[in-house]
Amino acid sequence: MAPKKPARVKARQPRGFVDRSAADLYAQDRMLATIRHVYETWGFEPVETPFFEYTDALGKFLPDSDRPNEGVFSLQDDDEEWLSLRYDLTAPLARHVAENFEDLPKPYRSYRAGYVFRNEKPGPGRFRQFMQFDADIVGAPNVSADAEMAMMMADTMEALGIARGQYVIRVNNRKVLDGILDAIGLEGDQGRRLTVLRALDKFDKFGADGVRLLLGAGRLDESGGKGDFTKGAELADDVIARVLRIFDADGLAGVGAAFGGHAGVDAGLEELSQIERFARTAGYEADRIRIDPSVVRGLEYYTGPVFEAELLFDVVNEKGQKVQFGSVGGGGRYDGLVSRFLATPVPATGFSIGVSRLQSALKNLGRLEGGARSGPVVVTVMDRDRMADYQAMATKLRAALNGPGRPPVPVEVFQGNPKQFGKQLQYANRRGAPVVVIQGGDEKAAGKVQVKDLALGKELSADARDNAEWREMRAGQELVDEADLVAAVEAILRRTGAPARRAEG
Amino acid sequence: MAPKKPARVKARQPRGFVDRSAADLYAQDRMLATIRHVYETWGFEPVETPFFEYTDALGKFLPDSDRPNEGVFSLQDDDEEWLSLRYDLTAPLARHVAENFEDLPKPYRSYRAGYVFRNEKPGPGRFRQFMQFDADIVGAPNVSADAEMAMMMADTMEALGIARGQYVIRVNNRKVLDGILDAIGLEGDQGRRLTVLRALDKFDKFGADGVRLLLGAGRLDESGGKGDFTKGAELADDVIARVLRIFDADGLAGVGAAFGGHAGVDAGLEELSQIERFARTAGYEADRIRIDPSVVRGLEYYTGPVFEAELLFDVVNEKGQKVQFGSVGGGGRYDGLVSRFLATPVPATGFSIGVSRLQSALKNLGRLEGGARSGPVVVTVMDRDRMADYQAMATKLRAALNGPGRPPVPVEVFQGNPKQFGKQLQYANRRGAPVVVIQGGDEKAAGKVQVKDLALGKELSADARDNAEWREMRAGQELVDEADLVAAVEAILRRTGAPARRAEG
Repeated sequence: MAPKKPARVKARQPRGFVDRSAADLYAQDRMLATIRHVYETWGFEPVETPFFEYTDALGKFLPDSDRPNEGVFSLQDDDEEWLSLRYDLTAPLARHVAENFEDLPKPYRSYRAGYVFRNEKPGPGRFRQFMQFDADIVGAPNVSADAEMAMMMADTMEALGIARGQYVIRVNNRKVLDGILDAIGLEGDQGRRLTVLRALDKFDKFGADGVRLLLGAGRLDESGGKGDFTKGAELADDVIARVLRIFDADGLAGVGAAFGGHAGVDAGLEELSQIERFARTAGYEADRIRIDPSVVRGLEYYTGPVFEAELLFDVVNEKGQKVQFGSVGGGGRYDGLVSRFLATPVPATGFSIGVSRLQSALKNLGRLEGGARSGPVVVTVMDRDRMADYQAMATKLRAALNGPGRPPVPVEVFQGNPKQFGKQLQYANRRGAPVVVIQGGDEKAAGKVQVKDLALGKELSADARDNAEWREMRAGQELVDEADLVAAVEAILRRTGAPARRAEG
Repeated sequence: MAPKKPARVKARQPRGFVDRSAADLYAQDRMLATIRHVYETWGFEPVETPFFEYTDALGKFLPDSDRPNEGVFSLQDDDEEWLSLRYDLTAPLARHVAENFEDLPKPYRSYRAGYVFRNEKPGPGRFRQFMQFDADIVGAPNVSADAEMAMMMADTMEALGIARGQYVIRVNNRKVLDGILDAIGLEGDQGRRLTVLRALDKFDKFGADGVRLLLGAGRLDESGGKGDFTKGAELADDVIARVLRIFDADGLAGVGAAFGGHAGVDAGLEELSQIERFARTAGYEADRIRIDPSVVRGLEYYTGPVFEAELLFDVVNEKGQKVQFGSVGGGGRYDGLVSRFLATPVPATGFSIGVSRLQSALKNLGRLEGGARSGPVVVTVMDRDRMADYQAMATKLRAALNGPGRPPVPVEVFQGNPKQFGKQLQYANRRGAPVVVIQGGDEKAAGKVQVKDLALGKELSADARDNAEWREMRAGQELVDEADLVAAVEAILRRTGAPARRAEG
């Protein structure tokens, strides 16, 4: 047998990770710039922490993880210490603030956008690397700061072009849910408390009847014919009825009626009514910030108010059903997270936006349009011995068409194999080039250059009755003096609006 | 003995990783935007790959690593496959291009900025996470594309404010060095080839005499009293003399004289003279792009021209010595990297900028100034029961002072403990606030509000002869009607130039 050739390496993205295209990145850039602008008008400034933290500094705060460090990418350093990739931007911020506590102004308002990592089974729409955009105020003890986070998120949604009525910031208080769990006798029973919270969190998905089952004996999932049974919290029927009042149209009143008088619940409700007052006084009505005692945020570290930014318009899900777009971010108060590291209590509140979910929402709303960029001016290569001249031509055009503070006008020489001229035009078309510059030997001898308007060329050649006529028209092509090259290209760019289109990008 | 309390977690950055401040990030943002702008004017568009790749896709191309995957952060996935964090942006690009080969325009011009990771012993100025900014043309077979990379890098340096004469793009060709190694009889002797290349790379550090030793018997490092001996390549004296001619003032002539006639060397020199012609014809003279056969780029995957962007001004190093700033990036042609994955050859050339090194160079040149941002307008809290009113005031100011397309003017309510008013002013000072808004009970009753110009306040109180007089002057403070609040704040911002200063950021 002949010896085997070494196997070629297979080019494939790792499972749960994706490459991102230019259009996607341009859209994201514009979106992030808008968010950043809003955060800065509220007095927040950027800070960045590294991708790795010591595993013990991150803590065990992932939602729905029962094992320590489940869901986290970790590895052991050469000094035996464990490092983990950050799974959110809050735990690293807490470490940063604790480490620099004396040097930071307090309250400390900061924002940061960055990728986080989850070591989970990837699935459709479930990625192991995704971007969050967080804002936090550390050292702010009062619910006025929580109210501010909610208001800033409302501002952010509108700055992104999401109309009032298409979004709402829902606000609850962990103290209300904790109080309810205490009031129904689950104090200290971590397991059942979690079961109840998870059940309540399923209201959007399964409705009141589904949640009722999950709070009681359990629920058989009949979708997909699998018949998975989820064990319930085994609450009594009358207790379930009381708990379900958090979903009343006026949830605050419902909770008040069912649990009023319980100290924990009352304290939570009082904070919620303060937040409501702060928002209303500043002009944020219930169509923007809504107090809703049914909001459950998964993360264990929340200690007070929690928020959820929900988009209210319908989209079609992967099963073809019409559903509300739903959450694009959330947050809450985490008074214990910084003080894990310090002897003093450090109150804090923050909000995290799921960047790619928000981006897909904006795409749905047509709010990412206008970002299409025109392609480059392409200088073609008719004579490969004259490459240096073509590069000089491109250099001249680039300098003339670009300047500081103006959107970039790309100019390039065709750098592929120049043998087949058709391939060069194909390339220019594919890149969305508005103009192609052509100079063969004849033109050069005459001190001329051909400038071809590709868009016009396409129109004209669609009109042309036959190939011969098309050739005759030289579809959108113009012969100009070498000295007039810049002016001729500029005229086409103006006509096609290429630089203007780019300006929106 | 009393039971031990659970140990508090220590807040510390992992070794070799750093947090980054607002000023640092603002400066980086401006720098990246400038680079991006230049790359876009040359027809490059962004693409992004994830932080992880399959380990086999990354290959073993780290400089100075003798073990496979040394220097790389790797971990095993739950399906037993090995994943690694990218150590540069070139290997992931090669994977991306190979995976999407049919769908990409060719030549494919792309750029990307992002963090890369090296699992190395951290040291002063040596980080395990750092940012690179790359541009590549894939599918460009000719050295005209290499010339273009060098020209674009020269443009980039100048766009960043590095004056002509303060930088140079040095260009060599791997074929020249390979040819020289063949010519002196080291064909196939990987170990000694590497020793010679490493020796040549030390010219800046040790000078001709040092390199001579390293090419010969070896060199004793007497710095720091350590006396480390580096074994040499053991070349004969006459061979060493020939090799050292690459460092001649006219290195091209030197190499031609010493090795002319060797087919490999001649081919390399011919490509270099073509690159020189391309650059000169486009107007890039030797003060910007210099052919220099002594440039050694470490990475094993280079197959043709290599580049190095060097900054020529002096800085003081950690030992207090004056040294040239040196390299801020480099690159070269890597015709084999994409075809590792494919059956067809895919020529490519690219350039990578070390973002943080470049940033520190620009800082040295004073080219990062103008990025200081003014702080927020701070609405203080005189009466905590009136927090809602203060937030409403801030909301009104924020809306009035900000608008689309204008630099952000931050406005915030003090969210710390409001008990000591002095702490609120301290906070405002620390944040660089231009204006503080104050409304106590008396002012409220009279429909008035105090607006305090903090900069003016500082000047005035420096002039005040005693504390009493300072109080009297109320240092820079002005009592205005509530209705005139926005106008009064705007007047101070105009006076202090705060929004203008921000505009530069």
